Amino acid sequence: MPTDVRPYNRDVIIRAFEDEDWPQVWPIIREVVRAKDTFTYDPEMTEEQARADWIAPAGGLGLTGTAEMDRNRPGPGAHVSTASFMVAADARGRGVGRALVGYALDWGRKRGYAGMQFNAVAASNVHAVHLYESLGFRIVGTVPGAFEHPTLGRVGLHVMYHDFAAD
Amino acid sequence: MPTDVRPYNRDVIIRAFEDEDWPQVWPIIREVVRAKDTFTYDPEMTEEQARADWIAPAGGLGLTGTAEMDRNRPGPGAHVSTASFMVAADARGRGVGRALVGYALDWGRKRGYAGMQFNAVAASNVHAVHLYESLGFRIVGTVPGAFEHPTLGRVGLHVMYHDFAAD
Repeated sequence: MPTDVRPYNRDVIIRAFEDEDWPQVWPIIREVVRAKDTFTYDPEMTEEQARADWIAPAGGLGLTGTAEMDRNRPGPGAHVSTASFMVAADARGRGVGRALVGYALDWGRKRGYAGMQFNAVAASNVHAVHLYESLGFRIVGTVPGAFEHPTLGRVGLHVMYHDFAAD
Repeated sequence: MPTDVRPYNRDVIIRAFEDEDWPQVWPIIREVVRAKDTFTYDPEMTEEQARADWIAPAGGLGLTGTAEMDRNRPGPGAHVSTASFMVAADARGRGVGRALVGYALDWGRKRGYAGMQFNAVAASNVHAVHLYESLGFRIVGTVPGAFEHPTLGRVGLHVMYHDFAAD
């Protein structure tokens, strides 16, 4: 039962996470964090930790890709949203990521957030950076060498922001 | 029993947190978060939450001011440290903050971190920004309007970084 089909990619059906999706979502997360080339997560994270981090915040999305959306900070920072995305290795290059980012942006706008912030985008993840820029994010700044890439060594970590008022 | 007295300010004795310090530390944290003008914490945070957030990471410092230091991110981001500082309202302007930041920088250097990142410094907190800059931090970027100040409205949130290799 798709609850939302976005115009970003007609071939990607996006729907809310259901408990029985987890056996398909966990392998995506496991592959991404074990690769250590995009996320500043503990590469040894367990299935239980992954589920707590990814599904708990505000509901995730799954199967060939998965997203989680949340407010970025509490208190005086609670009007800015954030999101994270992972796409299964064998499903990349088909627009799944673009569909997920578009969905997350709609999610944030509908809830009245002022914008969406990404706190730590590896500068080496050029496909993701270009995708985010094409969807209205800009690089606010880059912390030099803050990401230890398994083959490239230390690369920058971008902070990126999409101001919904500028849409 | 001071375990460390820094050269930044001879009148400030910095030592590790001990359990019996908490009744003096909690009022500092409570005042700072309730004011909603510097920290992106939940202003309604309870004493239990404050203790878990502040003392748990890697040990805090207390009495007229308090600091907590930790790695900033896990996994491929674990070589960058972070820290947070609060000074009691009636102890401000005496160099307590400067002493705490200096202590935190030494803490990070001694543990072999590549640098120290502050993720969310309210742009309106000009004393803190100037203090951090005077101690070698630079503004990496500013997320526009990401901090809801109680009287100034939405102001920017700086990401700041001190590269230990540049010292």
